[in-house]
Amino acid sequence: MPKIVDHEMQKVKVAKATWRIIRKYGMEQASVRNIADEAGISVGSMRHYFSTQSELLAYSMKLVSENVGRRIRNINFSGDLIIDIPNLVQEILPTNEEKRLEMEVWFAFVVKSMSDSSLRGHRNEVDDDLRAIFINIMEGLTEKGLAKSELNIPIEIERFYALIDGLAIHAILRPDKVSSEMIQRTIQIHLDSLCIP
Amino acid sequence: MPKIVDHEMQKVKVAKATWRIIRKYGMEQASVRNIADEAGISVGSMRHYFSTQSELLAYSMKLVSENVGRRIRNINFSGDLIIDIPNLVQEILPTNEEKRLEMEVWFAFVVKSMSDSSLRGHRNEVDDDLRAIFINIMEGLTEKGLAKSELNIPIEIERFYALIDGLAIHAILRPDKVSSEMIQRTIQIHLDSLCIP
Repeated sequence: MPKIVDHEMQKVKVAKATWRIIRKYGMEQASVRNIADEAGISVGSMRHYFSTQSELLAYSMKLVSENVGRRIRNINFSGDLIIDIPNLVQEILPTNEEKRLEMEVWFAFVVKSMSDSSLRGHRNEVDDDLRAIFINIMEGLTEKGLAKSELNIPIEIERFYALIDGLAIHAILRPDKVSSEMIQRTIQIHLDSLCIP
Repeated sequence: MPKIVDHEMQKVKVAKATWRIIRKYGMEQASVRNIADEAGISVGSMRHYFSTQSELLAYSMKLVSENVGRRIRNINFSGDLIIDIPNLVQEILPTNEEKRLEMEVWFAFVVKSMSDSSLRGHRNEVDDDLRAIFINIMEGLTEKGLAKSELNIPIEIERFYALIDGLAIHAILRPDKVSSEMIQRTIQIHLDSLCIP
């Protein structure tokens, strides 16, 4: 009698093996064989879960953004934007090892999406979702009367979002220069600069 | 009699073919054979210029940063920081097709450097050079008495640099959402926010 295995759990296991291969050896080494070896399953059973390498990569990419989305939904918001905004923004920054792995892999997929149009749709969806977070932040600050009245809101949305993406990359590439503490202070100073004292 | 060819010019030609391959097909396709085909030379003569693929990739990566450095050195500074800073910062942003190609290729090399330690030294040198630009900007604003007195300079250096890197990525990935005009206004608003009105 065949063992009952959770099909979805196996797919997640394979996707996480894909992440590790990408992180350690680069996208160039993300072949079905290397990923099967890393996941500890045969190439034959891989076909059970993913019919092509392209499908496997798309799934592995989506798993990153789903994890980020789940963490954001799980935040216990206080209702006080000055506390909630830094907490929210920190969830999309690599402030611990788990998020660091996800973010390194995400950047590898973003670069791959430049030459692989099959990944571009999902990349743009995630970008839209992230931009929507900063739209909500700026609208929230305005509605609650916290934002300075002279702000150019469309520019401030992009300025905040670009700052966070830049910090994410710097934190990954130069953890010696951009610590979690520095990230926290930078977010705080940026938020303060947008608000009425 | 052999034709006299400029060895260095041929290396640049091969490096630019490498950029085009990376941009069109991704780092996965940056093989010596594909690059030789793109450059219109034989695999045999490639060995004349680069003994390994790794040497070729390192050279192609360095050519990107050298081009950015040359553009910065060629800026005619006016001496007025409020004019010079936006001009300087624009040179590291993808505001035209040439810089766009270079920046896409640069990000591909940055991602490759995460798993390929041979590229990491140069990546960190360039990161140090770019960070030095923002150190100079913040020190210049302070010395000329233009910066607000309450600024936390180390944080403002990272905040400005991260903003610019984030804008660069967004401009590459979503030119529909982040236009050159929007980049210009964002830089202006950021600079204004650092300075005494």
